[in-house]
Amino acid sequence: MQKNIVVIEGDGIGPEVTRQAVKVLNAVAEQGGHEFNYHYCLMGACAIDKTGTPLPDETIEAALNSDAILFGAIGHPKYDNDPTAKVRPEQGLLKLRKSLQLFANIRPVTTYPSLQHLSPLKGKILEDVNFIIFRELTGGIYFGKKELNAEGTQASDECIYSREEIERIAHLAFKQAQQRRKKLTLVDKANVLETSRLWRKVVQDIAKQYPDVKVDFLFVDNAAMQIILNPKQFDVILTENMFGDIISDEASVISGSLGLLPSASIGKGSALFEPIHGSYPQATGKDIANPLGSILSAAMLLDHFGLRTEANKVREAANWTLQNGFVTKDIDPINFYFTSTIGELISDYV
Amino acid sequence: MQKNIVVIEGDGIGPEVTRQAVKVLNAVAEQGGHEFNYHYCLMGACAIDKTGTPLPDETIEAALNSDAILFGAIGHPKYDNDPTAKVRPEQGLLKLRKSLQLFANIRPVTTYPSLQHLSPLKGKILEDVNFIIFRELTGGIYFGKKELNAEGTQASDECIYSREEIERIAHLAFKQAQQRRKKLTLVDKANVLETSRLWRKVVQDIAKQYPDVKVDFLFVDNAAMQIILNPKQFDVILTENMFGDIISDEASVISGSLGLLPSASIGKGSALFEPIHGSYPQATGKDIANPLGSILSAAMLLDHFGLRTEANKVREAANWTLQNGFVTKDIDPINFYFTSTIGELISDYV
Ligand SMILES: CC(C)[C@H](C(=O)O)[C@@H](O)C(=O)O
Ligand SMILES: CC(C)[C@H](C(=O)O)[C@@H](O)C(=O)O
Repeated sequence: MQKNIVVIEGDGIGPEVTRQAVKVLNAVAEQGGHEFNYHYCLMGACAIDKTGTPLPDETIEAALNSDAILFGAIGHPKYDNDPTAKVRPEQGLLKLRKSLQLFANIRPVTTYPSLQHLSPLKGKILEDVNFIIFRELTGGIYFGKKELNAEGTQASDECIYSREEIERIAHLAFKQAQQRRKKLTLVDKANVLETSRLWRKVVQDIAKQYPDVKVDFLFVDNAAMQIILNPKQFDVILTENMFGDIISDEASVISGSLGLLPSASIGKGSALFEPIHGSYPQATGKDIANPLGSILSAAMLLDHFGLRTEANKVREAANWTLQNGFVTKDIDPINFYFTSTIGELISDYV
Repeated sequence: MQKNIVVIEGDGIGPEVTRQAVKVLNAVAEQGGHEFNYHYCLMGACAIDKTGTPLPDETIEAALNSDAILFGAIGHPKYDNDPTAKVRPEQGLLKLRKSLQLFANIRPVTTYPSLQHLSPLKGKILEDVNFIIFRELTGGIYFGKKELNAEGTQASDECIYSREEIERIAHLAFKQAQQRRKKLTLVDKANVLETSRLWRKVVQDIAKQYPDVKVDFLFVDNAAMQIILNPKQFDVILTENMFGDIISDEASVISGSLGLLPSASIGKGSALFEPIHGSYPQATGKDIANPLGSILSAAMLLDHFGLRTEANKVREAANWTLQNGFVTKDIDPINFYFTSTIGELISDYV
């Protein structure tokens, strides 16, 4: 097959991890006689530095015309502590999500037996943890009206959801649940928020179309506890944008290694694949960052292209490195391998 | 001293745990020659059942004229799965918070060595964990405008904050930090929300008045990870209402026993003290609920009255029960004592 992939390396460790994922994609393409064409684009702090805007029009254009986007990381500390900055790297990512209508962010949460010692949670809690979070990504308080009054003494953010926005991601989540353990948990705050009550109503309505799926409702404060106390109870979690941001990062600690978790953001057209870790400025340029998050995101990209065997081969290769101690500094601070070495080992394996 | 205490037992296990706290307060009063007058009031599902409203005017009136409020728990499952219910128990609590201007909810998070085996976290993570969360309680998305359009196809919630709302709780948090390890962490989402940028700006401004306190800023998604990965890094956490709801419940899992965590909500006038656990309908009426959350809330109430020695005595008594295996079923499902027995043991001790 022939595919056009937009590569957005982004900020911090983004470039160095993304390059490993591209190595792996190249190896897969060569093996299978596929042609992956890469188009490198700017987004984030690096785009502000070079073009004055966090998301140049060329990037949107290229992304819209691509078959998939591979993205690294975004953010730079110089913007974080300046609440008055008008231009910020993250605006680029939010605008890209909106432009491509990437309404569903999907994050699998699994554990690796060989990494149990790294998890903050006790071993017995980690057994059989296997769930997937569907986070709404283009609505809610992220994209509602934002206001700061002229005197700078009052600020507001509006959280807004329509039935359609909820329906489209809910259908995806229900379909996923049907292919798994047939349980869906809606995380909301329906005892306080009007938007949450709409989520609950819409999910109750849609549930009738999926009678084989058992539906649960959890308030977000309770969910934040349950994810740590008893994560194996979950199969598919569905939630709105802001709650999803919080609980999916929280859930990422379960495995003990943020560096190896991938994610997919899918919508109407092209889809975007990125590791869940951030730009990790302290590690930038040192060839020590964990490339598995990016490489496993590339595996999700291959799934998206229908190349399931190849995707599974990449996951197998990643497991093989972990089991044989070919790991980066975040996993073993004494006997560690470089980012680029892991990338090579995995591309040789597949 | 003579004090008027409004007691709101509330729903579910609220009554049975609150009664133990009252026993303990009575013991303290008797010992010290104090006079505590109790005024029992309704709020929550029980108030809806008896009066049609979750917060009768008499309760507000009595609370406003009291020296402190001791509260049990709120909520009933029959309201949770009906997104269209017009009257809900939680409205009572929210209205009470607003009527009394209880703008700061304060939750200490500590660990008990004798309960480490109950924590989902590994022992080495639990060492030296001791922080306190200041959650804003009368603003933000909880109290902003809520709308549902006539067709029921679109809903919105507004999150709104003013400089004064942030300032008053920030000062409390900074003062607390000065009396502790002198570190304050603001949890926000300043890379996305306008209200968070206002929080960050105001906290940066106020920080100048507390030069001995080191100030950190954490995005809420990152905070949700850090609380589990490395909770001992925190001293005082300050945050807005919705984020505080989520991260304070998340933090409650650290100790391994939600049932024994207290909280205080303070404002301009009277203050309210309540365990952080909910109404726990499954346990209602069985005399098995853990009364320590309520009893330790009563200790915070004694602190508030300036009775620090007495408050510490209550905490000592609670520790003594834990260390000697006088625990409820949530802590030891085999050899357990009843709610009322623990209440008696502690009132005998103080
Ligand atoms: C960088 C930031 C805007 C973003 C978000 O909050 O969505 C990130 O935290 C994420 O989860 O992808
Ligand atoms: C019952 C509910 C409205 C309340 C809240 O969200 O504030 C509760 O979760 C709490 O934290 O006290």
